Amino acid sequence: MIALNFKTYQESTGEAALKLSKICEEVSGQYGVNIIVVPQTADIHLISSEVSIPVYAQHVDGVGYGGYTGHVTAASVKAAGASGTLINHSERRLKLADIEASLVACKEAGLTTIVCTNNVPTTRAAAVLLPDYVAIEPPELIGSGIPVSKADPDVVTGSVEAVKKIAQDVGVLCGAGISKGEDLKAALELGTEGVLLASGIIKAPDQKKALEELVTGL
Amino acid sequence: MIALNFKTYQESTGEAALKLSKICEEVSGQYGVNIIVVPQTADIHLISSEVSIPVYAQHVDGVGYGGYTGHVTAASVKAAGASGTLINHSERRLKLADIEASLVACKEAGLTTIVCTNNVPTTRAAAVLLPDYVAIEPPELIGSGIPVSKADPDVVTGSVEAVKKIAQDVGVLCGAGISKGEDLKAALELGTEGVLLASGIIKAPDQKKALEELVTGL
Amino acid sequence: MIALNFKTYQESTGEAALKLSKICEEVSGQYGVNIIVVPQTADIHLISSEVSIPVYAQHVDGVGYGGYTGHVTAASVKAAGASGTLINHSERRLKLADIEASLVACKEAGLTTIVCTNNVPTTRAAAVLLPDYVAIEPPELIGSGIPVSKADPDVVTGSVEAVKKIAQDVGVLCGAGISKGEDLKAALELGTEGVLLASGIIKAPDQKKALEELVTGL
Amino acid sequence: MIALNFKTYQESTGEAALKLSKICEEVSGQYGVNIIVVPQTADIHLISSEVSIPVYAQHVDGVGYGGYTGHVTAASVKAAGASGTLINHSERRLKLADIEASLVACKEAGLTTIVCTNNVPTTRAAAVLLPDYVAIEPPELIGSGIPVSKADPDVVTGSVEAVKKIAQDVGVLCGAGISKGEDLKAALELGTEGVLLASGIIKAPDQKKALEELVTGL
Repeated sequence: MIALNFKTYQESTGEAALKLSKICEEVSGQYGVNIIVVPQTADIHLISSEVSIPVYAQHVDGVGYGGYTGHVTAASVKAAGASGTLINHSERRLKLADIEASLVACKEAGLTTIVCTNNVPTTRAAAVLLPDYVAIEPPELIGSGIPVSKADPDVVTGSVEAVKKIAQDVGVLCGAGISKGEDLKAALELGTEGVLLASGIIKAPDQKKALEELVTGL
Repeated sequence: MIALNFKTYQESTGEAALKLSKICEEVSGQYGVNIIVVPQTADIHLISSEVSIPVYAQHVDGVGYGGYTGHVTAASVKAAGASGTLINHSERRLKLADIEASLVACKEAGLTTIVCTNNVPTTRAAAVLLPDYVAIEPPELIGSGIPVSKADPDVVTGSVEAVKKIAQDVGVLCGAGISKGEDLKAALELGTEGVLLASGIIKAPDQKKALEELVTGL
Repeated sequence: MIALNFKTYQESTGEAALKLSKICEEVSGQYGVNIIVVPQTADIHLISSEVSIPVYAQHVDGVGYGGYTGHVTAASVKAAGASGTLINHSERRLKLADIEASLVACKEAGLTTIVCTNNVPTTRAAAVLLPDYVAIEPPELIGSGIPVSKADPDVVTGSVEAVKKIAQDVGVLCGAGISKGEDLKAALELGTEGVLLASGIIKAPDQKKALEELVTGL
Repeated sequence: MIALNFKTYQESTGEAALKLSKICEEVSGQYGVNIIVVPQTADIHLISSEVSIPVYAQHVDGVGYGGYTGHVTAASVKAAGASGTLINHSERRLKLADIEASLVACKEAGLTTIVCTNNVPTTRAAAVLLPDYVAIEPPELIGSGIPVSKADPDVVTGSVEAVKKIAQDVGVLCGAGISKGEDLKAALELGTEGVLLASGIIKAPDQKKALEELVTGL
């Protein structure tokens, strides 16, 4: 699984987000790989209406129906066409109680959940809350261009071991600094089910070529 | 101006949000009043594609293009069809530095801005940042059913005076507990340019009837 | 163990905090029970200089030495005489990554740690981070006067079971609504090692009498 | 006025904070300059008991007496011996509503207030809330070693002008990158009443010598 986090880059906002999503759809179909696009909340509806690969939200708050102005609910992103979401990304960390509440709300709404973590202990804490996936991303490597699979393979294998000991069916992804086919390959060899990536593809001079180069790592 | 905050109520999420927006559009046209719908971020695109009254966001973060996963940018809500936004609603308070940064981002994106405040001093602080509107809403009255125009008219007139002394062209709205025509009338008589309201309409047994009753106050 | 959280009540700030701590010390010695006082950060040094029972902080941030103006570090509360701390109290919830970082900092500083949680899943997530204690406090019962041991015994026994399955040596406390001897007794019978309490004692007309009535429950 | 922010540096925590405060007291007396020490909350009581120069807190929350575990109240830092406080430092930004509530609580407790800001618009917003001082500190220069008075004199003069237009009796300080006598001199020449500084003195190989070098700028 390749989850492409659009963050709030200009190259992946609004019409550019739609264009990039269509590239992802094309590469996904052509190479037979599972690519998930993760656009901003406001872009979910436009993209989900136009492409048929999975669209995930970047964040869901731990609140439901009610007086929660300005919050992102599981029900709203589901209604807009998302089929899953990141929770607790390093750029949008949540309180422990809110991660748990968000997971409950997402499960009720039928969203697949990826809880992001920063080290092995927080990976373990996330895993006991039984999300669908945990994504380990050491914050110091995010956007660094240095792949976590090379810079810190132990945090990846440590996370895989920790999660599998807690719950066999919680998947593990890794992220931070990943952009090339060899990084993806290394991540899978370390025992993960896939990767979370962003700038390496989104800021590439040729997004499609970068994505193709990535998937050839499989 | 009547701004209807959809919050995250079930009666104003997804398809229900679209239905309510169409009611607002109808009443707006029929009675010649300016009604603005303020749905959740994920619902903006669907609604703006289907109705022609203004759609505002509930919240915009003080960040721009870049590595800000899970944040709501001015550019993204603008691309989705919003023409304005609330900032610093009592259910989504922002740091002072972020209110300022959000206002700069919204101005660049061409969004009309309504900064929400809780008392006269914070109204004054918001006004010097020169948003298009300040909306005073005493938090203890929000969702109370007791209209601010009756319960605390001084905070409304105090806000109007304070704002007009700072900048003539910053508009003043008021909110909290408003649902009836007489409340709207009272708010305008206190010197405001309009109201911000939510549960009184959204949770009404008949939303259209409640909205019609409201606008007859004009 | 009885941990008395002083919160920011007037009856437990500054000189009043010192007076209450001396009452706790007296009752602790007289009845041979382990009472811990948990005053505001600014009161720790005064109290630890004057009483010999343990003094805990109410909160420690997940940061260490450096540019963290306005944060509470483990090193600073340790230097002021604290021997332990609450982390993630329901009135001061932390991000998951900060709970973990706070625990690491507290361990380095030699502080005993009590991580507060709101339900069984978050208790489990806290337990895998291996604090000295987890304190389960359903937020809706805090300050209610209805003891958790009566209102929701299942959340207490569920927490004890969950923690003991994860790590035998992590203790379990419970809190919320506890003020009487029978509540304390019930909490211990449900398998906890003690209680966390506040308003029931602090706001009592006679703090000493209330504390004595509590400990007779043992 | 020279306000020395101790942040959470090892060189200014616990006993080291006391030692540094005594150096400040000595230099203050010797050179006849007003030096204020701004230690961590837990260190206030120890320092205020031992030195006679003003001790300020680094942060006060916008809450009063009540159920606010882990928060820093104006009453508690006052009781511990503080005579003033920073509010909204760039490393501890507050929501607008909380800045206002903190100012009200500090005024009631008799604390002198310094609200920190990041640019001219937020300086203006802080000034209308009528603190005793506003301290402008461009965040990108904090800890940089490049003094704001050289790198961005316009933000300083712009802040002084903006504040004086709003309220003559609100003082202006500046900070960020200041460590030398010439920086202090430049800051005063730009119209400020003093400076806020930290690492330039605290991390100096010889704190006393660095402080003496600073005050000779007067």
